Amino acid sequence: MIDPVYLNTPMYRCDALGRQLGCTVSIKLETANPVRSFKARGTELVTSLLTEQGRTAVVCASAGNLGQALAWSGGRRGLDVTVVASVRAPVAKLDRIRALGADLELVDGDFEMARARAVHIAQQRGIRLLEDSLDIETCEGAATIGLELAESTFDAVLIALGGGALATGVGYVVKTSAPGAEVICVQPAGAPALTRSWRERRVVTTESTDTIADGVAGRFPIPEVLDDLLVVADDAVLVRESSIITGMRLLLEHTGLVVEPSAALGVAAVLEDRERFAGRHVVTVICGSNVNPDAYQRWVHR
Amino acid sequence: MIDPVYLNTPMYRCDALGRQLGCTVSIKLETANPVRSFKARGTELVTSLLTEQGRTAVVCASAGNLGQALAWSGGRRGLDVTVVASVRAPVAKLDRIRALGADLELVDGDFEMARARAVHIAQQRGIRLLEDSLDIETCEGAATIGLELAESTFDAVLIALGGGALATGVGYVVKTSAPGAEVICVQPAGAPALTRSWRERRVVTTESTDTIADGVAGRFPIPEVLDDLLVVADDAVLVRESSIITGMRLLLEHTGLVVEPSAALGVAAVLEDRERFAGRHVVTVICGSNVNPDAYQRWVHR
Repeated sequence: MIDPVYLNTPMYRCDALGRQLGCTVSIKLETANPVRSFKARGTELVTSLLTEQGRTAVVCASAGNLGQALAWSGGRRGLDVTVVASVRAPVAKLDRIRALGADLELVDGDFEMARARAVHIAQQRGIRLLEDSLDIETCEGAATIGLELAESTFDAVLIALGGGALATGVGYVVKTSAPGAEVICVQPAGAPALTRSWRERRVVTTESTDTIADGVAGRFPIPEVLDDLLVVADDAVLVRESSIITGMRLLLEHTGLVVEPSAALGVAAVLEDRERFAGRHVVTVICGSNVNPDAYQRWVHR
Repeated sequence: MIDPVYLNTPMYRCDALGRQLGCTVSIKLETANPVRSFKARGTELVTSLLTEQGRTAVVCASAGNLGQALAWSGGRRGLDVTVVASVRAPVAKLDRIRALGADLELVDGDFEMARARAVHIAQQRGIRLLEDSLDIETCEGAATIGLELAESTFDAVLIALGGGALATGVGYVVKTSAPGAEVICVQPAGAPALTRSWRERRVVTTESTDTIADGVAGRFPIPEVLDDLLVVADDAVLVRESSIITGMRLLLEHTGLVVEPSAALGVAAVLEDRERFAGRHVVTVICGSNVNPDAYQRWVHR
């Protein structure tokens, strides 16, 4: 059901980066596709199913990448796509959602407010609400990355932790097919709700978020997602903003990749605990590259 | 014979870039691999054959990317690899050649002087000389890109023209399997020897080169390569340095890819002749991303 352009993405060792980090680093690159993130693996699946069911419209809340992916997948299947996002989401993401033909509705609040608004729109119009990380298709889409990873051997996989679809999807497959590999989720210290929840084994919410990693800045973890994460994650770590920026810079200098902050969380985790990873083979999923060019410049070249 | 990490590379439409260029643009991405260029497709082939023949050493002249690729392919097969390069080649390329374990010999002159020195070393030591574009394995390696392109349909493919391996390899397959598609070679106006030769149907050399596109800056076209190019190329165009830089900038802004100047030649060609490509579907091969970070900054952000 998933367009091949999103599958069998590059996975390769980056020796120059590994040398900087003191371990063997492989990249799973999810940005070399029309929407520049992994999210279309899931939206391809869900829009295929909607089309089979004869549905004609779908709405989602998005930090920006899911909305682009849903616009791409829905657009080519003739679905009417509505995306609700925060006015504070990166302009680069909002522009692409519009360019891909979706109706974009902005809320004057954060991602959690966009979620609430999307629920309202779905109820009002009687259309399908796509809920990232809660709806199993979003996790299954991400899980296809895990299937591709499982063809290789490695010691640990570092996964950006936002809503949890990427971590539970990839984590489930890795724990099933390569149980010796550690599944490590990484979240910014400025948006720690799901990591804290994982540590306390109960849903912990936060009042606000404070991170440049806009793609993973949620406050209200979903109970069902936490349940899954407790099964598949070996660890969940928090990283500082400065490490995320250094991670972006190292990825630029040593791999030639422009990445959004969320995609640098894995490198940031290695930077903050070199001893843990020394000499080991870690895989990090480069999950998105949709970033405002001016903000990127400011972070990386200051 | 070619490690899968170099095969079936991403090929995808970049709508944001296409919008800027007034046509449909697809990218064939040859940089998401351990050596960040397409060259390893050829060096995998040649080192496999050398190993089968019981040979233990190989030397090549390189502008930087072939040397890296040969060091990678030769290193993992236990071959003794010597690379001859110009002292003026980008430090990023020279550093990686050394890091990959090759013996690097620098000449105080341009690529053509490195070629002469490599010939001498091969004769002196009685080892295999790998000559880019002349040795058929380098063209066959590049031709595997053509095989992958041929699974799609498009109106024109824009190929960086240096020694000619990429153009003749890809061009041969495209003309064979998709004869309706135009094969357009692109060279910097500051390093026009092979383009002039193609136009005049005889070898034309130049006294010097003047371009930032270090990967394609040759002065002495190889007669056999010109013969092939005359068969497979529909056109060969020259572009200005300013267009190459704009091309690099557009690729950064609209696709998130850091590319070396040679990889921006295709976009530069569209920029210089928008009318020719208006509304058509062009594929451009992003052939390398090995660039000095400081030089890149200077070009793109000035």
